[in-house]
Amino acid sequence: MSVSKVQTLIFDTFGTLVDWRTSIVDDLSRWGAKNGVVLDWAAFADEWKTAYRPGMDAVNSGKRAWVPVRQIYREKLDEMLPQYGLDNVSENDRHFINEVWYRLNAWPDTVPGLERLAKKYVLSSFSNSDFLGMALMTKHASLPFDAIITAENVRKFKPDPSMYEMAVELMGQGNPERIMLVAAHNYDLAHARKHGMATAFIARPTEYGPEQKTDIRAEQEWDIVVASAEQLAQELGC
Amino acid sequence: MSVSKVQTLIFDTFGTLVDWRTSIVDDLSRWGAKNGVVLDWAAFADEWKTAYRPGMDAVNSGKRAWVPVRQIYREKLDEMLPQYGLDNVSENDRHFINEVWYRLNAWPDTVPGLERLAKKYVLSSFSNSDFLGMALMTKHASLPFDAIITAENVRKFKPDPSMYEMAVELMGQGNPERIMLVAAHNYDLAHARKHGMATAFIARPTEYGPEQKTDIRAEQEWDIVVASAEQLAQELGC
Repeated sequence: MSVSKVQTLIFDTFGTLVDWRTSIVDDLSRWGAKNGVVLDWAAFADEWKTAYRPGMDAVNSGKRAWVPVRQIYREKLDEMLPQYGLDNVSENDRHFINEVWYRLNAWPDTVPGLERLAKKYVLSSFSNSDFLGMALMTKHASLPFDAIITAENVRKFKPDPSMYEMAVELMGQGNPERIMLVAAHNYDLAHARKHGMATAFIARPTEYGPEQKTDIRAEQEWDIVVASAEQLAQELGC
Repeated sequence: MSVSKVQTLIFDTFGTLVDWRTSIVDDLSRWGAKNGVVLDWAAFADEWKTAYRPGMDAVNSGKRAWVPVRQIYREKLDEMLPQYGLDNVSENDRHFINEVWYRLNAWPDTVPGLERLAKKYVLSSFSNSDFLGMALMTKHASLPFDAIITAENVRKFKPDPSMYEMAVELMGQGNPERIMLVAAHNYDLAHARKHGMATAFIARPTEYGPEQKTDIRAEQEWDIVVASAEQLAQELGC
């Protein structure tokens, strides 16, 4: 597909623009140090993240009524804390820990790359986050978005078709070729392509840590394949 | 109402943050000069704007299927051009003229005020604009929003209840007291208050030009009443 008609870049955010795993380890290590809790926070983050896909699939399949991903993580947190000997963590602290998902830091190339892209393109999130959480993270990570769209706008998660249809409507005014999805996950790009959008893969081979097995590389011939947001800006002439 | 629980400020945009009338006159005067068209552009803008409320009311009442306000303005433009002796304006120029609604400039106090407010609060538009148009205007006017929400998210216009309910859901996670609507229009604040939000009035007594008759002053005791976004930042301790 030609990318010359693209006006808006929509970004997967968790993994593609922000380094959730390192951020969570750093943030919760600080909380642990203050509260006398010693844990393998990387293992904790990895286990926590396993709740993500099954929790969302339950909503998409109709097995469960709409809940934001914030709630899916909170339930998993409440289940995990006793297993780590942390039954006594207060409600305030549980809330603080769960909100770490909106205190994540950008990969080093993200903000410089997006700032270049923002001069030519409209930029928006395209995330399975809840809406307020994405607004908070946009602010925390200084992401120069012109707009945000999230799963909470349609109460379904990627890869439900309603997510891609919403992007085509809101950002393309019905014209998918005006939109490029930028993502570190092949499944997301496959669905965007099926809905007529242009596609850009940013490789994030350490998103899931040093042992990452999936999404190490582009699995289809995406329109653009790069290793950073700055390289994407370069490829798009920004 | 106490404003101490407020976490998110949502802003009416046209009139409250951007000076649509002066911007349109300046922008279209430049277009006119380049194309040999001499007009009273202020009168043109005033007449154009009259299409806004009836066009939206037709959608809200169900008389007409959803159309974005962009389409309402375009229909009025096509109706007006012949009356101004401009039957021969090309499709490209009509599109350019209509897009002026997304090339509007901020009032002088808007960006400095919002930049101060953004340090403490989540900021979002809350506008009857279409979604992409608001993203374009956010960029054009350098509005430091963390998020945007528009009528196109619910396919109804203010003051339809679904607009206020959406803000309470997306920005307040069901808690309206966490949200303050900032607007230059008393009707909008009255509906926000009815839905449980805090309210701030910014007086824009020249939004409609020197002869403005409505919304010259606060018509109820809004939580905050100011004359600029910078004064709002001051009142909120930013």
